[in-house]
Amino acid sequence: MRFLSETSADGVREQIFSLDVASGELPGVLWTPDGATGPRPLILLGHGGGQHKKAPAMLARAHRFVTGGGFAVAAVDVPGHGDRPTDPEFDRIATENQARVEAGADLASVIAEFQALVARRTVPEWSAALDALSLVEHVGAGPVGYWGVSLGCGLGVPFVAAEPRVRAAVLGLGGALASADEARRITVPVEFLLQWDDERVPREQALALYDAFGSTEKSLHANPGPHAAILPSYELDSNLHFFLRHLL
Amino acid sequence: MRFLSETSADGVREQIFSLDVASGELPGVLWTPDGATGPRPLILLGHGGGQHKKAPAMLARAHRFVTGGGFAVAAVDVPGHGDRPTDPEFDRIATENQARVEAGADLASVIAEFQALVARRTVPEWSAALDALSLVEHVGAGPVGYWGVSLGCGLGVPFVAAEPRVRAAVLGLGGALASADEARRITVPVEFLLQWDDERVPREQALALYDAFGSTEKSLHANPGPHAAILPSYELDSNLHFFLRHLL
Repeated sequence: MRFLSETSADGVREQIFSLDVASGELPGVLWTPDGATGPRPLILLGHGGGQHKKAPAMLARAHRFVTGGGFAVAAVDVPGHGDRPTDPEFDRIATENQARVEAGADLASVIAEFQALVARRTVPEWSAALDALSLVEHVGAGPVGYWGVSLGCGLGVPFVAAEPRVRAAVLGLGGALASADEARRITVPVEFLLQWDDERVPREQALALYDAFGSTEKSLHANPGPHAAILPSYELDSNLHFFLRHLL
Repeated sequence: MRFLSETSADGVREQIFSLDVASGELPGVLWTPDGATGPRPLILLGHGGGQHKKAPAMLARAHRFVTGGGFAVAAVDVPGHGDRPTDPEFDRIATENQARVEAGADLASVIAEFQALVARRTVPEWSAALDALSLVEHVGAGPVGYWGVSLGCGLGVPFVAAEPRVRAAVLGLGGALASADEARRITVPVEFLLQWDDERVPREQALALYDAFGSTEKSLHANPGPHAAILPSYELDSNLHFFLRHLL
């Protein structure tokens, strides 16, 4: 892991890093409280489709978790996103999927299949990021939380199911089509966000994903609005309290 | 309104009162911060079926809202409950309903019909309680919140729909059968609690009630467990923050 740059704003230190992984260079970012030393719980953020590790909503979320809970927060780019090169295989599949949807294939099924395919690469990448971050002095090998909605849920469910270091997860805006089996293997506390008027994830699919989680503690939070609406600020407050309860 | 007794515990002043209403004497209780003077927002609590104004969960909730937010909190007994005489008409209907259920009638429908019947009495009683409490020096005529689940939701939906002084409501463990029309008339912020394994309120009926609320801000919070499970403590925290956002 190489740190490439460092800046600070509003009490938050931001370090851009790069990590060698099997599939090449993994670009990432680490946020911690200014001046922090020693271990602290880490929250890994998964970004949405077409977004990247430093998209505005990601930055806002990271700052809230760092300043509100003293957490370390990290994010990496998904293949084909952010500072990563376009991926010819994924591009080809995306083009084929577009044609399938135009030919009448079910959008939710096509998205779910694609996310399951991408997850085969991101699950080991994100575990490699946890390995590297655990060796950073101001992060350490403490408990890990995961936050991801939409694509960050499609990739997050198999990650949380596979990664025993994750002790609590905020997921949402995703459905059961791709990942019901992995969801059943998740037993850590889950806060699950659902947009009641989601035009991309059928409501019954989202409810079925919530239903599938094997967790004893799992809360479903639904709010009105479409898939890409800005989540209510009180949900971010709730996410923070959720992580404070389970990671501290 | 006559105050009958006063005690204090853990920073909370508790005053038992009685109010003359059309249907007789309405027994109630008012909780406020010890030593409080002047107006403050009021939260009216509706109790569950077979419960009463001072049931343990009601007391715990009242104390949390008083000490956590400086609110005034009040509750009154539903007809046939607590310190109120048994009601021959309701007893007769309850017996008939029991026979209907044993003969195969749908339990949720029977409960819903009965709650709608009781609401015709409780809506004016609770508005009369707000009138009287608004004249109490340490309560005043400020904004009002409502909290009620199960029977407290079945009676609460028509009350919140009818009572413009209510600015925010926590409801839950109820279905759309009895009160979808009233729910559509509710436009204040709602936090709606749902038990995912509720054996008394079919899940689709509860989701339909959430769907029916006319509010721009409405959040559905679902958690695993049966109808009568103790609600997670983090939901009470969430309810407190919800009232702080909307009543202060």
